[in-house]
Amino acid sequence: WRGFREYSNKRLDIAGIYPPIATPFTQDGGVDYRSLDENLQKYSTIPFRGFVVQGSNGEYPYLTTEERIQVVKRVRQTLPQAKMIMAGSGCESTLATIQMSESMASAGADCVLVVTPCFYRGRMNSSALIHHYTQVADSCPVPVVLYNVPANTSLDLPVDAVVRLSQHPNIVGLKDSGGDITRISLIVHKTRTQDFQVLAGSAGFLMAAYSVGAVGGVCALANVLGQQVCELADLCTSGQWDKAKELQYRLIEPNTAVTRKFGVPALKQAMEWFGYHGGVCRSPLQPLSEVEIKELRTDFSSDGWL
Amino acid sequence: WRGFREYSNKRLDIAGIYPPIATPFTQDGGVDYRSLDENLQKYSTIPFRGFVVQGSNGEYPYLTTEERIQVVKRVRQTLPQAKMIMAGSGCESTLATIQMSESMASAGADCVLVVTPCFYRGRMNSSALIHHYTQVADSCPVPVVLYNVPANTSLDLPVDAVVRLSQHPNIVGLKDSGGDITRISLIVHKTRTQDFQVLAGSAGFLMAAYSVGAVGGVCALANVLGQQVCELADLCTSGQWDKAKELQYRLIEPNTAVTRKFGVPALKQAMEWFGYHGGVCRSPLQPLSEVEIKELRTDFSSDGWL
Amino acid sequence: WRGFREYSNKRLDIAGIYPPIATPFTQDGGVDYRSLDENLQKYSTIPFRGFVVQGSNGEYPYLTTEERIQVVKRVRQTLPQAKMIMAGSGCESTLATIQMSESMASAGADCVLVVTPCFYRGRMNSSALIHHYTQVADSCPVPVVLYNVPANTSLDLPVDAVVRLSQHPNIVGLKDSGGDITRISLIVHKTRTQDFQVLAGSAGFLMAAYSVGAVGGVCALANVLGQQVCELADLCTSGQWDKAKELQYRLIEPNTAVTRKFGVPALKQAMEWFGYHGGVCRSPLQPLSEVEIKELRTDFSSDGWL
Amino acid sequence: WRGFREYSNKRLDIAGIYPPIATPFTQDGGVDYRSLDENLQKYSTIPFRGFVVQGSNGEYPYLTTEERIQVVKRVRQTLPQAKMIMAGSGCESTLATIQMSESMASAGADCVLVVTPCFYRGRMNSSALIHHYTQVADSCPVPVVLYNVPANTSLDLPVDAVVRLSQHPNIVGLKDSGGDITRISLIVHKTRTQDFQVLAGSAGFLMAAYSVGAVGGVCALANVLGQQVCELADLCTSGQWDKAKELQYRLIEPNTAVTRKFGVPALKQAMEWFGYHGGVCRSPLQPLSEVEIKELRTDFSSDGWL
Repeated sequence: WRGFREYSNKRLDIAGIYPPIATPFTQDGGVDYRSLDENLQKYSTIPFRGFVVQGSNGEYPYLTTEERIQVVKRVRQTLPQAKMIMAGSGCESTLATIQMSESMASAGADCVLVVTPCFYRGRMNSSALIHHYTQVADSCPVPVVLYNVPANTSLDLPVDAVVRLSQHPNIVGLKDSGGDITRISLIVHKTRTQDFQVLAGSAGFLMAAYSVGAVGGVCALANVLGQQVCELADLCTSGQWDKAKELQYRLIEPNTAVTRKFGVPALKQAMEWFGYHGGVCRSPLQPLSEVEIKELRTDFSSDGWL
Repeated sequence: WRGFREYSNKRLDIAGIYPPIATPFTQDGGVDYRSLDENLQKYSTIPFRGFVVQGSNGEYPYLTTEERIQVVKRVRQTLPQAKMIMAGSGCESTLATIQMSESMASAGADCVLVVTPCFYRGRMNSSALIHHYTQVADSCPVPVVLYNVPANTSLDLPVDAVVRLSQHPNIVGLKDSGGDITRISLIVHKTRTQDFQVLAGSAGFLMAAYSVGAVGGVCALANVLGQQVCELADLCTSGQWDKAKELQYRLIEPNTAVTRKFGVPALKQAMEWFGYHGGVCRSPLQPLSEVEIKELRTDFSSDGWL
Repeated sequence: WRGFREYSNKRLDIAGIYPPIATPFTQDGGVDYRSLDENLQKYSTIPFRGFVVQGSNGEYPYLTTEERIQVVKRVRQTLPQAKMIMAGSGCESTLATIQMSESMASAGADCVLVVTPCFYRGRMNSSALIHHYTQVADSCPVPVVLYNVPANTSLDLPVDAVVRLSQHPNIVGLKDSGGDITRISLIVHKTRTQDFQVLAGSAGFLMAAYSVGAVGGVCALANVLGQQVCELADLCTSGQWDKAKELQYRLIEPNTAVTRKFGVPALKQAMEWFGYHGGVCRSPLQPLSEVEIKELRTDFSSDGWL
Repeated sequence: WRGFREYSNKRLDIAGIYPPIATPFTQDGGVDYRSLDENLQKYSTIPFRGFVVQGSNGEYPYLTTEERIQVVKRVRQTLPQAKMIMAGSGCESTLATIQMSESMASAGADCVLVVTPCFYRGRMNSSALIHHYTQVADSCPVPVVLYNVPANTSLDLPVDAVVRLSQHPNIVGLKDSGGDITRISLIVHKTRTQDFQVLAGSAGFLMAAYSVGAVGGVCALANVLGQQVCELADLCTSGQWDKAKELQYRLIEPNTAVTRKFGVPALKQAMEWFGYHGGVCRSPLQPLSEVEIKELRTDFSSDGWL
């Protein structure tokens, strides 16, 4: 079975670039599976390691449990087997996360990406998070990737918790979207004996992350400029740092535009410009204003992408 | 029909004190309906205006959709009709919130309490939140109460959005847990022509909130010291401010202990000390440490409550 | 000697309203002492308890050591003896604060207002701050008032430090500008045996602060609407809470405009509108933009003050 | 004249490593010039580009104006001419900063490091900061280096302000201590046509900063492990990234310990362990507790430095 490696000696290798895919919706608000297929087919010429399904950019908090699973199933059917599916299965409660992880695995996920629970963030200390992730990893039929995204959760998974969790045989890595390069370096350093893999959570610091030992990235921008993000990864892994630097520079502003600055509506808007199906978000996410669209376009054009 | 007043001339009066009830769980992790009943019966001698079911203290993010509805049904069956049920129906998406609000109304809620969606907080500006709440209120069979709780959501519902939403005939008030008394005063001031009702979201600033025009409170501490919180409200509404002040002082430390300082696990621990069923929280919320329990006890005993 | 009470049995009574006066500057950038005099003369008909000289609104970080002392001297010369001078003497180092406090006392200050040092805020824990204030109070020839202003210092003087410091015979009170009414209530409660006096640091929550036991306020808005702020204080101390509430409401927006929203440049602009000398700030503080001036005017006119 | 280049065609080259030197004090609290000399002599064998005098680690907010200038003079006398002196001359007001910059230049500084004014941070927008720095640079006899240190100032110098200021002929670079590698990359990218030089403000992200185009670093840790920080810089500039990475890893924990985690008292404690004069800080900075000292030692020993 693809991806299954429970307590085997060799960890699942998750190195490479993944777009955290957007979820297209139809006019009447349902998931637009046809558009999803077409996006995936368009991505097929790009050397992605795989796809993150139900990351923050997939609007997973706005999908029902059934939709979350169904989307993973559809992506599995459409993709060639060689492409990895990393499915977002995080929920607020430990039990719901365990159940969702099992459903994701059954639906064809090669591994699951588990965001930190955060509603009661005042109580989500190292101890609580270690307990949560250990229970999830113990029962999960596929490997677990930790997911730290403070911009959405207002919480940082403590380094000591990551180090401790890296020793769990079914926890293979961490996606870190915080952008604190010192933290990322330290995590790589402190988990080296564990064959633990760190993925940059954004294209904005992808090269810096590779330079300190990350092995890949989950990059919203790869939904739009996938070939370029993969090329940047290639330049880094082949040690062509000067060329990498030039490309990295030109990806920062478009990346910020579709993430921190304007968020998912901007990602979907930019996808339209580059020939993908983006479309609208589910409410309460609103479309960009005219002014925002203009600024978004500038953020791409000033670096020569539009 | 109790509570139904769609587009009538008179708004639902929500003045008074509400405990946001905790959800007891059985040994095997299910909702403990018997303990829930017993808590409600014990509360029956206290002059509460009603009960908030599925507020933050009810661990609603850890309940399934079915459990959320079922708990409201059970509370409705147990409570006398005169007691108001304000049910938390907020979800991240507008559609899910609409559906949950309808379910809550069908289950017997007199009104619904709708927390600000917050996962994509960078995009949750006034415009998005006005849109969200308007859609929810348009379709909701019972009145809507806005719910601002920045400690959990890392988001403040902007004052201008509250003012705008106060004009909606089916939005009757706001529960504000932020504790910014200037903001609460301003909201009362700017919504006065709308018969809009503000509830303090904590016992820590209940008297101050009354002094500037709030009409009640949803207070975690009322789960433990319900009689005292109601007495404080009485002293305020009857203008006995000096007596109110003395009582208010003694409620601050216990209140902070069961909210910001130690959270829901402390609330449930303190409920046990005062003869209610508290018990454990669902994971990932962990029980208090020995040191925390000791400090919690001091926070009650130093003000003479234990 | 006015104000001197070192280790006497009775603390200096600091109850009442104080404007933290602005510092007018001449065309060539020097302190405009003549305009300062004229402002003070205009204030003489208002029942202020006294004046804060070198608070945040006085642009003290932009004055030289000599200017800071000279301004206090001039105010002392101009004011009748019955009016209290509370002089801001806080510096980053303990030694500099001790020296400045002595200079202020010699220049005629009745008491000194000592802001929390904050540059190394990561190390400014309770212990360091207790040490700092104790040393200052030990050597200061006039009483000390603690000053907590997190908007400028990004630091909150911990409650336990305030409680401990309230036991010092030469520390008579606290000006708290943070606006956290629960915190203010708790401080009043925990320091009651010490005859410790709390002043609200803003007109926005003045009534609420009085309701929980504060004895006065240092209010930027009192530079502009001094009579009204004093009237609000009177309504509070005489128990006319309903009238107080109506007046409090109308002061919130103008207050926010001249403090958190637009800062000192707005305070000085509004002073001009109300017949005082405001003028420009020292650089790097810039004048308001046209748009900001218009909005500032609205914030006064919408509540009927312009 | 060393360093003087006003409006010449070639900017002052500031590439390389600088320790922001600590200020030793005597038993009676004065500046300990003899210990300062001895530290500098001990540093003479390390290939530093120069020294930052009166950075945050020099406790400059606790020095008098005269001491700040005198320390620069003494360092100039002690150092060989080839070593650059970058003197911290930032004050809150523009005028004071101009005067201090002139004094620093007269005292022998090759360039000045100007921290963002921050007390009125709500008004310190791009426009105000551009105005401030332009006035300072216009009049300064030596080149100006911008200084962004949000941990102390709670303010981020906006990228657009940096880009605009990079066009000033007398502003040669930026020291950025924030550690946001995406921001550093973007600043290098957007200022490339200006021969603008970026220095990492900490050893924790020194290698990552070099990888994206920084030309050096001002590193507190270089006061303790100077040879190692210079070696890391060498490995980066000579393209030996794999070796650099290994060394970088081992510097993160000691670096965090003497900066964000325990601050200047820890830097001075560690200096003692490595044969330099550290000693006590001025009040209100307190010595480390026993527990902190133990943890500090572990942060050095776990990476093999003690």
